[in-house]
Amino acid sequence: MPKTKAAIVAVGTELTTGFVRDANVYYLAKELDALGIEVTTTTMLPDDRPLMREVFLEAMRRSQIVLVTGGLGPTEDDFTKDVLLDLFGGTWHEDAKTLERIKMLLERRNLPLTTINRQQAVVPSSAEVLPNAFGMAPATLYRYDGGILVSMPGVPAEMRGIFETELRPRLASFAGGIIHQQLYVFGVAESLLSARLRDWSSALPEGMALAYLPSMGNVCLRVSYNKELVGSSTVTERMQELYHLLEGEKLLHTDLSFPAYIVNTLTERKQTLSIAESCTGGLVSGKLTGVSGASKVYRGGICTYINAIKEQELSVPHEMLEKYSAVSAPVAEAMARGVREKFGTTYGVATTGYMEMAGDANMTGEVYIGIATQQTVFAHHFVLNQNRQGNQEWSVDRALVELMLVLLP
Amino acid sequence: MPKTKAAIVAVGTELTTGFVRDANVYYLAKELDALGIEVTTTTMLPDDRPLMREVFLEAMRRSQIVLVTGGLGPTEDDFTKDVLLDLFGGTWHEDAKTLERIKMLLERRNLPLTTINRQQAVVPSSAEVLPNAFGMAPATLYRYDGGILVSMPGVPAEMRGIFETELRPRLASFAGGIIHQQLYVFGVAESLLSARLRDWSSALPEGMALAYLPSMGNVCLRVSYNKELVGSSTVTERMQELYHLLEGEKLLHTDLSFPAYIVNTLTERKQTLSIAESCTGGLVSGKLTGVSGASKVYRGGICTYINAIKEQELSVPHEMLEKYSAVSAPVAEAMARGVREKFGTTYGVATTGYMEMAGDANMTGEVYIGIATQQTVFAHHFVLNQNRQGNQEWSVDRALVELMLVLLP
Repeated sequence: MPKTKAAIVAVGTELTTGFVRDANVYYLAKELDALGIEVTTTTMLPDDRPLMREVFLEAMRRSQIVLVTGGLGPTEDDFTKDVLLDLFGGTWHEDAKTLERIKMLLERRNLPLTTINRQQAVVPSSAEVLPNAFGMAPATLYRYDGGILVSMPGVPAEMRGIFETELRPRLASFAGGIIHQQLYVFGVAESLLSARLRDWSSALPEGMALAYLPSMGNVCLRVSYNKELVGSSTVTERMQELYHLLEGEKLLHTDLSFPAYIVNTLTERKQTLSIAESCTGGLVSGKLTGVSGASKVYRGGICTYINAIKEQELSVPHEMLEKYSAVSAPVAEAMARGVREKFGTTYGVATTGYMEMAGDANMTGEVYIGIATQQTVFAHHFVLNQNRQGNQEWSVDRALVELMLVLLP
Repeated sequence: MPKTKAAIVAVGTELTTGFVRDANVYYLAKELDALGIEVTTTTMLPDDRPLMREVFLEAMRRSQIVLVTGGLGPTEDDFTKDVLLDLFGGTWHEDAKTLERIKMLLERRNLPLTTINRQQAVVPSSAEVLPNAFGMAPATLYRYDGGILVSMPGVPAEMRGIFETELRPRLASFAGGIIHQQLYVFGVAESLLSARLRDWSSALPEGMALAYLPSMGNVCLRVSYNKELVGSSTVTERMQELYHLLEGEKLLHTDLSFPAYIVNTLTERKQTLSIAESCTGGLVSGKLTGVSGASKVYRGGICTYINAIKEQELSVPHEMLEKYSAVSAPVAEAMARGVREKFGTTYGVATTGYMEMAGDANMTGEVYIGIATQQTVFAHHFVLNQNRQGNQEWSVDRALVELMLVLLP
């Protein structure tokens, strides 16, 4: 469907051994998607020369744009430049502007110029150099039949800086003309939705497609179309049919992430929020503060990880904790009410649960999520079945969805 | 160096468009590494039949173990099974045990058995079926010359469940005999370390290797060896040489993550911790509560996202906020002191900063990290240069490293 395809390649043994969790592939996939460029494959591989060569060639065969991150460090296990010299030819060449930048960076930190530092300015003569505003190793760009390969450092800040200042403007000319519309459907299983939409989806015209993106408590229906193949009246018509098929369901049409939707909605309504977390340990709060402008609506949160602090900080009655235990609906409600009053906000959200439990294979944990509004207080109970980290992530997402459901029109 | 190689393939348009951040590849890479199995490539690709076929074949050519996740959903954009039938042959076959399990799961949720549900029990007759304790779609295992390919659902909880109960025991027989030792060096740049260790590292015997894994404020030196090629006396000797070369540096030899190291160390010393967060919004607290047993040492945290709450909850003097602003060393120190007193803990950690700032390309934000101990209170200042999310992640990691430096022997 799209005209332009891209591949992402992330080099580094720290990735294939799970020592660090990738951030670059995720960032680049999102950015390319926003530009309407389809990603064919994303590959992570260790610092291994023959394998790098192989994977670079595969990516070039499949895509007109290949974005490579990593393998440009100063240590002896970084080979990206060598492999690219070998693939694209040329000779080693010291880039004068890069050397100037490296000297400047070192002077700022009061460090001497070492041979290893200087080596960072040496690039294949076949490359076009793209400056790195935040670090030593520059990015390099190579051309092949109908395509470009760009090698960038693996340090996320450096990679993002180069992408934003150098690469995004260049990629605009490749942009694929693919447009997405996202319609979230809450509370309907993917299999039931799929049965209901099968006829509609299989009758979509060439250049228009539906993807099911299920997540916590909802399925995002992502309708993509190529604006050069599908006229806007066709899109309107088909979307109306889709809405008709989904009549009566809880729907949300938005491009925003859930935390951004929450912050935007509260800002528009001049409402505020506070959060009390036990089992999620501050991660719900962290998600919301990841949104620009969160400080307009989010007053604060408290992580009450032990019972005494729940009593001290949220006025949860001692007798209630004794009678029901900390993991109970009454306590989740008392926490939500307590934090709402403490911080004087429109809404209060609370989590309390066990993230690890032994014994039952179908239940590795449980969580109560409490919500306090101006009118009411309630708590919902959920059984968890992942490991500690999975249960925590699940509970964080679920708390956001519970709040979304309260805020939805 | 290792005998057994594995490839990981994650299928799903939601991954290559950046709609969701991968968790499965990261999990599997870590697990395979722990088994001493080397990962050659990890590939993510959209739900695209010809491309899936191509990528599966590449993975099988490179590796004796291929782990595939995703593409097993009930919707019309899920093709993994079709591609595997095509590759490994056989006919469609309804697996009786899987059908039983599906019926049971549906009964539990009071749902009828639909054609789409029933379809989940249909697998290629060439497959060995591995049961999925947490969902409908089973995993399937295929054999090829000297290797196995396993297809698992993409839902993280289901995939992890299958890996833990079915796959890990089978993979033990492939285990590569690779052992890792991790030595963290704090406060030395990777380039300087590399210069110092180059001779040592290039003289390592066959079957022993050094990798540099730089992260926040430290470089992890990861020494890997194949225990069938390198004797234990050689390993001891070489590690002693390494320690000798690093004499005088702040070192830590551990397999633990930093949050786990912090929780373990505080538990051993019978000490406690509390955290006050502004700009990091609860994420430092969240990292610590991700560790099993955190409740023994972590009493609680508070996210004071606006000034009034800093005064109300942490007794930061109003005049101090007026005079120095909330993003300042005195306020970071007052917050650390305030939270330590509020929760009655051995240590208090505080963060305050700007995660977004316009104007200066070399400074997109700044953060002060305050630490209060029984003896002293101090704050350190850091300039940030990523986007909002990157700056937040950086600040979280830095706060953990600041606490690590206080706890290191």
